[in-house]
Amino acid sequence: MTAGIIDGKAVAARVREGLKTEVAAFHAATGIQPGLATVLVGGDPASEVYVASKRKSSVAAGMADLHQHLADDASQAEVEELLKGLAADSSVSGILLQLPVPKHLDAASLVELIPFEKDVDGLTTMSVGLLAQNKPGLRPCTPSGVIELLDSYEVPIEGANVVVIGRSELVGRPVAQLLVNRNATVTIAHSRTKNLAEVCRGADIIVAAVGVKGLITAEFVKPGATVIDVGIHRGPEGLSGDVDFAGVAEVAGLITPVPGGVGPMTIAMLLANTLRAAQLQHELAAV
Amino acid sequence: MTAGIIDGKAVAARVREGLKTEVAAFHAATGIQPGLATVLVGGDPASEVYVASKRKSSVAAGMADLHQHLADDASQAEVEELLKGLAADSSVSGILLQLPVPKHLDAASLVELIPFEKDVDGLTTMSVGLLAQNKPGLRPCTPSGVIELLDSYEVPIEGANVVVIGRSELVGRPVAQLLVNRNATVTIAHSRTKNLAEVCRGADIIVAAVGVKGLITAEFVKPGATVIDVGIHRGPEGLSGDVDFAGVAEVAGLITPVPGGVGPMTIAMLLANTLRAAQLQHELAAV
Repeated sequence: MTAGIIDGKAVAARVREGLKTEVAAFHAATGIQPGLATVLVGGDPASEVYVASKRKSSVAAGMADLHQHLADDASQAEVEELLKGLAADSSVSGILLQLPVPKHLDAASLVELIPFEKDVDGLTTMSVGLLAQNKPGLRPCTPSGVIELLDSYEVPIEGANVVVIGRSELVGRPVAQLLVNRNATVTIAHSRTKNLAEVCRGADIIVAAVGVKGLITAEFVKPGATVIDVGIHRGPEGLSGDVDFAGVAEVAGLITPVPGGVGPMTIAMLLANTLRAAQLQHELAAV
Repeated sequence: MTAGIIDGKAVAARVREGLKTEVAAFHAATGIQPGLATVLVGGDPASEVYVASKRKSSVAAGMADLHQHLADDASQAEVEELLKGLAADSSVSGILLQLPVPKHLDAASLVELIPFEKDVDGLTTMSVGLLAQNKPGLRPCTPSGVIELLDSYEVPIEGANVVVIGRSELVGRPVAQLLVNRNATVTIAHSRTKNLAEVCRGADIIVAAVGVKGLITAEFVKPGATVIDVGIHRGPEGLSGDVDFAGVAEVAGLITPVPGGVGPMTIAMLLANTLRAAQLQHELAAV
């Protein structure tokens, strides 16, 4: 193996430590304790685990845990009312509606009730528009985590040729926007791309977020390139990603493992967004 | 010269004729005559010419001319009040704030007063977000015109390698989004791109919107590629674009001239957006 390993656990831990200090300083300077309102509807076991982890992490960073739990059969109107209340409540810095919600609810219209300055998942249409306009706002967590990893390992982004594979709302599209905003030359590739291997071989950085296990093999990778794997697949041998790790690690210069690469960054960036949301609201209130 | 010429004037005229029929049919079926409210603040001579042309074209398409003119010294509050009134007025299908506005006004915050379903320029953060999410909404006119030209000449977009040069809010970014939504593999290049000629030589379609006169020369173009020139530069010999037309026309398969290429499409797509806005509001009212 020749590639250096990008240690997402270590970077996430550093980000969290830094946030703890920043949160304390912001709290001391303004009297405002950033607070995260996670909203869970129903009892999906995986969602419960994720939400518990987000709550615990926010408390560890010095934030207030403003968790809300609604029953499985909560009506659209009940969830709407809760979200509107959180939107209006000045003690709430960030609102996160844990997805998926039960099938009888209209998730898309619920998400849109989160005001952009509290949208710590960065998923509302306003947040997506602000990102595409390169205006201040909250960016989606996993894409921000990808940028943080690149910066932590001092991978040059400006002027780099980057291929983003996948164009999902959650990852591919926003990560491409973030990279364009950082002056990269960005190619958005996807399942309809012809000669994907050839397209990828031109890249200094590959971001794989296509959702196909092991799709990216060594022949896709220019020697020395940086490979970021956002895919997560569960198999008999445990977790793996969109990248054939063993093969690509022989060619790449830097590579994220799965698990332990991008994954740990998501909650770290959620915490960063919650602090940023509190700061944004403080700035907006001062105008 | 080997390239076929993409005749924007002819395509625009066809679009306008088609719209005339569609507007009449919509009017007959719903009793709603689409109406365009152009808003001009002050007397900038170029803006007056543009607005007059938009008004004349909308009337020719069977739409109501709801033009509003405010004095050069109109206050921010006055323009805001006018825009809020138009937003609330059900006889107004589309609102277009002619830019630039006088310098004492905050253009960005004025634009945001246009509701997304009346935003016929497609410039508000909501419209930009809806495009990036590939959700129904109004798309910016010049980028839509580029797509219309490609479709009119039956240039395959799905699976094509497209290089968009320029990442402006008005053209580069939205045209890239539209092309991704149409399943192209899209590279966003710009002033910081290294080896721009090499990047472009891989493209089946080049969209030049970088604002540098004659930047794109024959060596940037793969033989047979389609070249769309969004640039407009005034010089001693008249208008020209970002593309060195004479040279590139020897290599390209299809090429837009300047003038007479993309330019005529902008107003045609504005009219299409105004009808679409009227339809969208009709649909939303029915929900």
